[in-house]
Amino acid sequence: MKLRKIAISTVAVLALVGCGSDNQETKADKIERATQKVDKNLLTDLQKKALNAGFQALPSSKAEQLKLADNPNNPITEAKVELGKKLYFDPRLSKSNLISCNTCHNLAIGGVDIVPAAIGHGWTENPHHLNSPTVYNAVFADKQFWDGRAKDLEEQAQGPIQAPPEMNAPKELVVSKLKSIPEYVEEFKKVFNSEITFENATQAIAAFERTLVTPSRFDKFLQGDNTALTDKEKKGLEVFIDKGCASCHTGIALGGTMQPFPAIKKYKYNDVGDFKGDKNSMVKTPTLRNILETAPYFHNGAMTDIKEAVNVMTETQLGIELKKEETENIVEFFKSLTGEKPKITYPILPAMPLNN
Amino acid sequence: MKLRKIAISTVAVLALVGCGSDNQETKADKIERATQKVDKNLLTDLQKKALNAGFQALPSSKAEQLKLADNPNNPITEAKVELGKKLYFDPRLSKSNLISCNTCHNLAIGGVDIVPAAIGHGWTENPHHLNSPTVYNAVFADKQFWDGRAKDLEEQAQGPIQAPPEMNAPKELVVSKLKSIPEYVEEFKKVFNSEITFENATQAIAAFERTLVTPSRFDKFLQGDNTALTDKEKKGLEVFIDKGCASCHTGIALGGTMQPFPAIKKYKYNDVGDFKGDKNSMVKTPTLRNILETAPYFHNGAMTDIKEAVNVMTETQLGIELKKEETENIVEFFKSLTGEKPKITYPILPAMPLNN
Repeated sequence: MKLRKIAISTVAVLALVGCGSDNQETKADKIERATQKVDKNLLTDLQKKALNAGFQALPSSKAEQLKLADNPNNPITEAKVELGKKLYFDPRLSKSNLISCNTCHNLAIGGVDIVPAAIGHGWTENPHHLNSPTVYNAVFADKQFWDGRAKDLEEQAQGPIQAPPEMNAPKELVVSKLKSIPEYVEEFKKVFNSEITFENATQAIAAFERTLVTPSRFDKFLQGDNTALTDKEKKGLEVFIDKGCASCHTGIALGGTMQPFPAIKKYKYNDVGDFKGDKNSMVKTPTLRNILETAPYFHNGAMTDIKEAVNVMTETQLGIELKKEETENIVEFFKSLTGEKPKITYPILPAMPLNN
Repeated sequence: MKLRKIAISTVAVLALVGCGSDNQETKADKIERATQKVDKNLLTDLQKKALNAGFQALPSSKAEQLKLADNPNNPITEAKVELGKKLYFDPRLSKSNLISCNTCHNLAIGGVDIVPAAIGHGWTENPHHLNSPTVYNAVFADKQFWDGRAKDLEEQAQGPIQAPPEMNAPKELVVSKLKSIPEYVEEFKKVFNSEITFENATQAIAAFERTLVTPSRFDKFLQGDNTALTDKEKKGLEVFIDKGCASCHTGIALGGTMQPFPAIKKYKYNDVGDFKGDKNSMVKTPTLRNILETAPYFHNGAMTDIKEAVNVMTETQLGIELKKEETENIVEFFKSLTGEKPKITYPILPAMPLNN
């Protein structure tokens, strides 16, 4: 289980070579390639059961993680990620100069804002009472936004910047503000070999977000390290699989696919906000990575108690009622999903021009 | 001019030894000690003139900077600074869970919020239309707040957390939230050998803020490096001294003392907000370090153009009108005051408990 280590710059080069839509590896192919290195003969029954349930490990090497997270149409490069980080933290991307991507997807607190519904421009609560999903591992979701209306992070990043109840900044305003800052003009030129556009600003942000993946003990377990989980966590994993939770919360993200919601019974907090999913009532399954850090739960942030969230979920989606102990076991398993966050140096942003 | 380098931990020990109020070095003594190492014989006339005008260099060694910035009643230690950094970035110190110290004193953008008047809880504008002063080098001000009502950063940090239009969190709420987070309980115990109190939370924040000092080319110039300033900047420095600006904007902070305002003529933007200084109409002189990054200017944030700010200042406080070229020269000098910011790793904060 020795993973080849390669430098980030090499990843970038590989990604560039892989560019174009003809010969693209699908996401499933990429995950298959990254996880096939586990020697199945050395696995315990529970490890085999977990892999059969569709869980996939995040590789432990940063370079392999970035290969999985990369987008051939917006390849990750060091310079682009650095620019994207600046933009992610820059409150000048909002009309008020006060709200950045990091305001609602705060990297210090699980990549979320820990409030039930997002608060944006002018202290406006999200009009549908939608909760901010975590940006950590968001790259591994099939689609973005609760109704899956954005195909990837690049498309997603365009939304909240412009949305009036969020950052409330029209494209033209964002571009004119960025263009007024000489260091940004130069940096965009270096990264994109072009002038500043709204699209390449959001591409840089998405490239940064693609690096925000958090390997955890559960990955080590899937990779063959049977000691990575405690006995209680293993018990919880077993319950999680046996009860059917892994039918949706699976894959590398333990979530991230569009699913019918509510599937079996009425959702208890249905009246908090008016969100009902996409046109087919499908809702994006949240990732369970770092779930113990991302309360409140559900699309409308209606619960802060993780045990209640587990119970409401199994009732609504599986039509079953868990025993107290089963709920506790599952929550115990969640501890193994709290991952290691990338070390981020807080950016020093280029100053606005002297006269404006 | 060789500066002795010592490790931060040694600084902490020295500070602890220096604790107690009997034998305390005054701030002036400390600055004198730190700056006396310059060999006056090797200085140019302008360097001598600058030192005679009262400017003092920030030492280039981090350890010497921290000695200057230290508070014997709240000694800087590595562990305390690390805790203080977490609290500084933690939005859970506000009632809403959305506003941290860093919201208004954003370390990415000059230690300020770049809006004219601070925006706090519920998107409330500061009721006196007061502008957020920069946290960088704030340690070197004689007093804190625009009316100087806090004697130091430790006292200052208690204000905005509780103020209803700012973070709006009563002491008891802050303490109960922090106490609900086991990692904080442990960390406070390690740092303060006590349970969590509002006072030691603000002490930790202040200790972190004391490390936020930004040496610049002007310091190198004062320390004897005549090439550290461009000819234009030197010209600007000369005008700055000759016109009398250095009568208030001097010392290590190029500001930080309480001064009568307006001193000579009516302040042009007097009607923006109702702030009139302390009971004697004294207002804290802002530091000029990083001034090109901290627009809008003046206590009420009434100007974004630095040239206008210089002109309004000289008219109001010195009763003189500058020639266009003189204003430009002074602004040129300000470039040498943009300092190097400490490298901050964005903290990963301990999560809230599972059920709350």
